[in-house]
Amino acid sequence: MKIKDLGEFGLIDRLTSILQVSDSSVVVGFGDDCSCVNINGELILFTSDIQLEGKHFLKEKIEPEDLGWKLISINVSDIVSCGGVPKWGFISVGFPPDTEFKYVEKIYRGMKDACDFYKTEIIGGNTTASDMVLLDLYLTGKTDRFVGRKGAKKGDYLILSGYTGLSRAGLELLLMNKKNYEDFEKRLIKAHTRPKARIDLSQKIMNYANSCIDVSDGLIGDLGHVERSSSVKIVLRKENLPVHPDLRLFCKKYSKDPFEYILYGGEDYELVFTVSKENINYFDNCFVIGSVEEGEGIFLKDGISTKKLEEKGFEHI
Amino acid sequence: MKIKDLGEFGLIDRLTSILQVSDSSVVVGFGDDCSCVNINGELILFTSDIQLEGKHFLKEKIEPEDLGWKLISINVSDIVSCGGVPKWGFISVGFPPDTEFKYVEKIYRGMKDACDFYKTEIIGGNTTASDMVLLDLYLTGKTDRFVGRKGAKKGDYLILSGYTGLSRAGLELLLMNKKNYEDFEKRLIKAHTRPKARIDLSQKIMNYANSCIDVSDGLIGDLGHVERSSSVKIVLRKENLPVHPDLRLFCKKYSKDPFEYILYGGEDYELVFTVSKENINYFDNCFVIGSVEEGEGIFLKDGISTKKLEEKGFEHI
Repeated sequence: MKIKDLGEFGLIDRLTSILQVSDSSVVVGFGDDCSCVNINGELILFTSDIQLEGKHFLKEKIEPEDLGWKLISINVSDIVSCGGVPKWGFISVGFPPDTEFKYVEKIYRGMKDACDFYKTEIIGGNTTASDMVLLDLYLTGKTDRFVGRKGAKKGDYLILSGYTGLSRAGLELLLMNKKNYEDFEKRLIKAHTRPKARIDLSQKIMNYANSCIDVSDGLIGDLGHVERSSSVKIVLRKENLPVHPDLRLFCKKYSKDPFEYILYGGEDYELVFTVSKENINYFDNCFVIGSVEEGEGIFLKDGISTKKLEEKGFEHI
Repeated sequence: MKIKDLGEFGLIDRLTSILQVSDSSVVVGFGDDCSCVNINGELILFTSDIQLEGKHFLKEKIEPEDLGWKLISINVSDIVSCGGVPKWGFISVGFPPDTEFKYVEKIYRGMKDACDFYKTEIIGGNTTASDMVLLDLYLTGKTDRFVGRKGAKKGDYLILSGYTGLSRAGLELLLMNKKNYEDFEKRLIKAHTRPKARIDLSQKIMNYANSCIDVSDGLIGDLGHVERSSSVKIVLRKENLPVHPDLRLFCKKYSKDPFEYILYGGEDYELVFTVSKENINYFDNCFVIGSVEEGEGIFLKDGISTKKLEEKGFEHI
């Protein structure tokens, strides 16, 4: 059997069953945005995410500064979604020997900008020769309470921290290879190339969220992890899903359905989380988009009709 | 300027100057086998090392179980060389979609065997699609005292934990594509494909070594890091350098100079360390191969003649 026949999540399930975790100081192992270890009473988070040329980015389609920024941001996003703040990063890089030093330097400047913004530091690394640009970041973080995919409870409100679908629209625009882009198109492209992790919500997620995940594989794909890990049913209300004006313009211009982007577009790095009713006031600037119920599956309520959504997400294999 | 013109270490120097570390809990940042952070009084070590198909291994030349074993071992070796014991690993993998699951499974079984042997656990990971097999491990460890490249002192004895040069001989044998190998050749190949990190010395290194590094880039290449970081002169005695019988057979058969392998062969994952005279008795089963003096450079003493050695090491770029 080939691994493409198993799918990304099927593969992960089989592989993690080989690597059993028994250390009692490991609070969370495989299966969430971060692993978590108790070190002398501190909850330390671990995550990693890679940017591989040709798979996650095209060299001629993203500025090296943005690439460096994005690498840090997508990892910070995983830490934040577990209720943490980022602390120490470790960078593993590979470049073809013919790479211009200026190009590499710009990636590092982008990483440094992002580290300053998120108040984190890269403290070590490893360098190798490679046939394509390879940037693999390992990031640690701290939290007082691990928030993950498992904690969604019946009766919780489902909250989205911002707009989704913009990054996918931006990616499609990039791949159109247009000579000139309109202003709203440039903004959508920027949403794809320079995402911002929601570090501003870190403390509130830690204090008040029952479950949380970041929107990297698409809203429904990621909510599928929450639904299965928490064994709950999730009901979205279509009228509550925020549609960004730029996405509206994009969809009008190119005859697309915005909800296809909002529900299934990936790489937005917004947070989708669930909170109890009494904590909903802490999230004034976010969107309440649905609720958690007993049962299973993800449903979209549109007026009086309700339909079950297919949990397709972006799979990397 | 292209990065190949800078060399691996020139590149690293320039890049790390961009990523300045100011966090006071970071005990050691860039520039050693591991970084080290103080978390609530615990000294936590961080390292990472990658195995990239076509760069670090050839798929048809190493059994997948050995590849998994080697990935863990080379990272454990970095932890041990800083006086630590390995604790939690985090694995980032990439495979072409057409890869057979059996192949991937065997790599993971090799990793698991190594984890059991070294008493460490992989607690999380990330999976991606890739054009070649990519295995990037991020390993943490613990120590009571950080031992690194900087602590070598004038008057120290220079100690080597075991034989070197075997791995390079094994690699050359592998690349000969012979149909049949003699027994000693098979053992040399195994030294290359299934190295064992010196976890047995971890506690002694932590307690008694003033400096330590593992032999990954070659004895002289790695001693060069110690010499420069510690600002000392290192003098080796040729008659004290251990020559393994299998290497002797190899060099006789193929008309090679064993000292070229012993001094400059890489990937042995033995430890070379320095200790004060009063601690030398703790290392009965190791080889005292030289001494640390005031000055700079690495010298080889052969009878009454002494020559300065060129500090060439294996560079990955």
